[in-house]
Amino acid sequence: MKFAVIGAGTFGARHVQAYDRHPEAELVGICDLDLALATKVAATCSTPVPVFDRLDDLLAIDGLDAVSVVTPDHLHRDSAIAVAEAGKHLLVEKPLATTVEDAKAIVAAAEANGVTLMVDFHNRVNPPFVNAYDAVRNGQVGEVSYVYARLSNTIGIASSISWAGSSSSLWFLASHMVDVAQWVTGQRIVRVHARAVRGVLEGRGIATPDVFVVVADFASGALGVFEHAWILPDSHPTAKDLKFEVLGSDGAVYVDGSHNRAVEVYGPAQARYPDVMAPPYGPHLTGFIMDGITHFVDSVMGRRPVVATGEEGVQVTAVLCAALESIETGRPVEVPPAT
Amino acid sequence: MKFAVIGAGTFGARHVQAYDRHPEAELVGICDLDLALATKVAATCSTPVPVFDRLDDLLAIDGLDAVSVVTPDHLHRDSAIAVAEAGKHLLVEKPLATTVEDAKAIVAAAEANGVTLMVDFHNRVNPPFVNAYDAVRNGQVGEVSYVYARLSNTIGIASSISWAGSSSSLWFLASHMVDVAQWVTGQRIVRVHARAVRGVLEGRGIATPDVFVVVADFASGALGVFEHAWILPDSHPTAKDLKFEVLGSDGAVYVDGSHNRAVEVYGPAQARYPDVMAPPYGPHLTGFIMDGITHFVDSVMGRRPVVATGEEGVQVTAVLCAALESIETGRPVEVPPAT
Amino acid sequence: MKFAVIGAGTFGARHVQAYDRHPEAELVGICDLDLALATKVAATCSTPVPVFDRLDDLLAIDGLDAVSVVTPDHLHRDSAIAVAEAGKHLLVEKPLATTVEDAKAIVAAAEANGVTLMVDFHNRVNPPFVNAYDAVRNGQVGEVSYVYARLSNTIGIASSISWAGSSSSLWFLASHMVDVAQWVTGQRIVRVHARAVRGVLEGRGIATPDVFVVVADFASGALGVFEHAWILPDSHPTAKDLKFEVLGSDGAVYVDGSHNRAVEVYGPAQARYPDVMAPPYGPHLTGFIMDGITHFVDSVMGRRPVVATGEEGVQVTAVLCAALESIETGRPVEVPPAT
Amino acid sequence: MKFAVIGAGTFGARHVQAYDRHPEAELVGICDLDLALATKVAATCSTPVPVFDRLDDLLAIDGLDAVSVVTPDHLHRDSAIAVAEAGKHLLVEKPLATTVEDAKAIVAAAEANGVTLMVDFHNRVNPPFVNAYDAVRNGQVGEVSYVYARLSNTIGIASSISWAGSSSSLWFLASHMVDVAQWVTGQRIVRVHARAVRGVLEGRGIATPDVFVVVADFASGALGVFEHAWILPDSHPTAKDLKFEVLGSDGAVYVDGSHNRAVEVYGPAQARYPDVMAPPYGPHLTGFIMDGITHFVDSVMGRRPVVATGEEGVQVTAVLCAALESIETGRPVEVPPAT
Repeated sequence: MKFAVIGAGTFGARHVQAYDRHPEAELVGICDLDLALATKVAATCSTPVPVFDRLDDLLAIDGLDAVSVVTPDHLHRDSAIAVAEAGKHLLVEKPLATTVEDAKAIVAAAEANGVTLMVDFHNRVNPPFVNAYDAVRNGQVGEVSYVYARLSNTIGIASSISWAGSSSSLWFLASHMVDVAQWVTGQRIVRVHARAVRGVLEGRGIATPDVFVVVADFASGALGVFEHAWILPDSHPTAKDLKFEVLGSDGAVYVDGSHNRAVEVYGPAQARYPDVMAPPYGPHLTGFIMDGITHFVDSVMGRRPVVATGEEGVQVTAVLCAALESIETGRPVEVPPAT
Repeated sequence: MKFAVIGAGTFGARHVQAYDRHPEAELVGICDLDLALATKVAATCSTPVPVFDRLDDLLAIDGLDAVSVVTPDHLHRDSAIAVAEAGKHLLVEKPLATTVEDAKAIVAAAEANGVTLMVDFHNRVNPPFVNAYDAVRNGQVGEVSYVYARLSNTIGIASSISWAGSSSSLWFLASHMVDVAQWVTGQRIVRVHARAVRGVLEGRGIATPDVFVVVADFASGALGVFEHAWILPDSHPTAKDLKFEVLGSDGAVYVDGSHNRAVEVYGPAQARYPDVMAPPYGPHLTGFIMDGITHFVDSVMGRRPVVATGEEGVQVTAVLCAALESIETGRPVEVPPAT
Repeated sequence: MKFAVIGAGTFGARHVQAYDRHPEAELVGICDLDLALATKVAATCSTPVPVFDRLDDLLAIDGLDAVSVVTPDHLHRDSAIAVAEAGKHLLVEKPLATTVEDAKAIVAAAEANGVTLMVDFHNRVNPPFVNAYDAVRNGQVGEVSYVYARLSNTIGIASSISWAGSSSSLWFLASHMVDVAQWVTGQRIVRVHARAVRGVLEGRGIATPDVFVVVADFASGALGVFEHAWILPDSHPTAKDLKFEVLGSDGAVYVDGSHNRAVEVYGPAQARYPDVMAPPYGPHLTGFIMDGITHFVDSVMGRRPVVATGEEGVQVTAVLCAALESIETGRPVEVPPAT
Repeated sequence: MKFAVIGAGTFGARHVQAYDRHPEAELVGICDLDLALATKVAATCSTPVPVFDRLDDLLAIDGLDAVSVVTPDHLHRDSAIAVAEAGKHLLVEKPLATTVEDAKAIVAAAEANGVTLMVDFHNRVNPPFVNAYDAVRNGQVGEVSYVYARLSNTIGIASSISWAGSSSSLWFLASHMVDVAQWVTGQRIVRVHARAVRGVLEGRGIATPDVFVVVADFASGALGVFEHAWILPDSHPTAKDLKFEVLGSDGAVYVDGSHNRAVEVYGPAQARYPDVMAPPYGPHLTGFIMDGITHFVDSVMGRRPVVATGEEGVQVTAVLCAALESIETGRPVEVPPAT
């Protein structure tokens, strides 16, 4: 089947690499407003791949079956709807959108056009979270009382994202953890009370908070704390700090996705803890990011359901919008159900 | 100089052991309503130590200089004031008291009688926190943005405290972390918004919450999250989970006081991570708990100031009382200054 | 293409699962002397798979392309040669054989019959080792001075292997690390001096050493220490202890494949650190063991070279045979080159 | 009582600080050939301390009771014997000496003059090793099968020791681990087979090996591996790598004294894991190095036996001399008993 990718940034390039390596997927196009960037990413493929700077041209490719939308967080809506209306299956990078209205519009377009929509919450196929899911669902922790989640980045990462000021660690990082928390516990978040700390990034000309803290109530009565910073010091041996923990009446699960020391490299100049779950580009591409995209290929071929549905994408967006409203008003905000 | 101990429970026994081993301290009495318990603890000493079940009798010991008050958290007031009024120096186990009124009354009694009052916040001499203090005060992290603190216990520990239903992980554990956070950052907590999760301990007949989460504002604008559970599974290889982290504009400090794996023991039946900072009784008593008491001996001898003052004890009590009020009212609560 | 599996034990079942899930592989047969076991493993597949207790019958399957040999370590020779002589491609589980003569006979049979032979040293596609390989080959550690490798199992694992007395932790575990060490450094081991400790397993009626230590000289002059125990206490939260470390003139790489705490699960009764690299059976089969087999499918299809060649398999067997000879003679033993 | 220190280097300064802070010890002199260095160290004390560049002058101090010998490893003999012959008690920094003859001469001088001799193997009061000792002696691991010990330093540390070429990581570091291994297991090492790797330090003009590996037989039949490098990359967040592990028939103990992450500090420029067991100078001097010296004060006062005897010091020196002989001859070398 034929696949294409919209958006040739860091993650777009990963989608490109995944399709290029997949034995059953044919990568037929890469689209980016920056044609030079698209060309550069295309050059990493094993065969020539056409590049485009106009979405219409990409969607006109003969026999195109499915498209990855990997544009900046806040720009998913128009591309995604255009793809759906062209009758192509859709893999939208997380978060689905940055307003509930946008998110719902994408879901509606997919439904109206009868195409498959998957949100790329690839941590659902990331082994540590799969283990956490299994442990919780198999009753290893009993009734869930408390969830703690942290996904933060070094300030170097945050500073390298050109559109960071139009996004935040809430959209970029909390979207993963809110989805994982709801998926692992099987419980919807119904209320949030959030706080933000500002100053360091603003001092560098990036208009976004340094740290978010979201206190969340799950439907079951469990409590959650989500913590997301974009100012970790660059002396960290990893680019991120990732923790996810579930405490219940009978047990607990702890995931350390960053400082676990599965691998430590001490080079001449600096220490690094490479990520063994989501390896970077190069001859060894494997890991959960590729697995998520492989899973999408399977879904498009009708072999298994999508990793995360559009409704689940709307739900995460709703939680994060409520968190932003809570920060503005200083009060708890209820989260409406996605449907 | 002559020292005595009131309260012969787990921590009272540690004070007894510390005085017994100190070359400059003479342990002259142990007082507990349960005379059999006092006798049992006295039997662990290198020389015979008189025991008492009436406080007046203890305070009447000829030449007594100073007394440790190690009764249950909520019962410090009467003993402490009696000690002060008898003109003896005072080491009060943390928290100083469980109401601001009680805490202030103890401070007033010490002042009125001209005796030294130290609150036994021994984590101030615990090496990981001393390192954190040094790193923050030496500018390694820049301006503090965020503090995260966790001190939790296994449910086995919580269940073993006879007066657990009259206390909580907030008094028993959060008192340490609130003090450390204010001490390391040099910033007072001015406002808190707290939450509690209930059910597991209540189901076991212990009327206290399972988990507390306190979101705190420091005077400087920094944000803090404190998390304290009393229901960790007993399959944990340590009896506690202790994390303390400070994130600033230029760096970060992370303390892992429980799962650091400095020592792991895998015995025939179970795994244990012994605590290397605060070793238990026996021939090897050393570590920060003894260091705190040694420090008090030095203070009584006029060699150095106390580790933590009465006012600092009042301040911690004020923060925790505000947290409890916030849980009841569902709203943020301002914390008044201690003085 | 059509694949079959000989040997339906723990690892045979993993090969079965991998072929069953691979979109391009058709699993057409499972062979085991214990037909009931073969039937049980076949029942885990998504479609019916024929079972056999005679190798000839399996090899007579019409259109069969390739076969996994997953019999006990010391029994690979006859099956592997029969497969090669039938003109089928060959994936032999590690170690290739337990004598150099057997190993060379397998390689010769594959060559004589023009079939692909891959040794299933799947740690070559295990992300931590891939990272180590990349770091060393990219010059991050400079000239290699020293290699330390440990792969050990709990005594419960060793006791569960019915043929443990005919094998040892040297064949079962050291084979992995010797291969990884030669592969990562690009250096052949030319001399070994080995030691064994006995007593605990023998006391349980299993005639194999408890611990092996192999001191190895690489061709470059670097030194290596390999350590392999089969008596770790069952209170370990993982079934293995896996470390691999390379120290060079300019840097160092450390792999901790067992106690890295990427995931910790504290259940009602016991603590477990699940392996996130090589997940077990079930709906989430992924990880490097499946990746190794997938890689074999690609090799059979002519897309890429095998993960490890027969000659590399002979080399590892030669190192381990030399280690056993050194233990018997008490002297260093030279390791001949494989070819 | 009155104490003095010979040698004002890194460790001599620690002895000075310890005596200066000890309430029962009076520090009455510091001696070093480099009088400026002695003066500098004296200036860190709370009261004026006389300095000397001639040993005779120091030993002539009126009422002097005991002396710490903290000169370079290979220069202990003359100073120690002079101290003993002057009738002063002796604390000799580890290793006792670098030849068995020197070590025995020191022991003989102490005996002949009736003075207390303690070897400063301070890891015997270092909490992780105390825990290991307790676990092994209390039967938690059953019969000991195997001991693994690693104590290595970054190349920056090795390069900073002016007399590194006259010593080695064997004397500087292995001396600790050989003593700990014999002490924890209660078993003497009777035979060693050792190897050395050279090149990196020699390339920097420091004539000492990069890495030592010692395979040791204990009297009980247990096997040990000791590994000591002086070329760890300076990008390590600690200056050392310290592991000590004991595997027995029923259990195992693991000590990680360096990378346990009890504290991690990520500053603007670099990452550090401060040592929480043996804190550096400054207002917070505490930890096992001070505890060892405090213990010596107690021994001199007759309160408890020394931490490690002269005979135990001879035994460690004998093991290390045998290791050096084994490296030269390429053969195993028997270790004679100390007495």
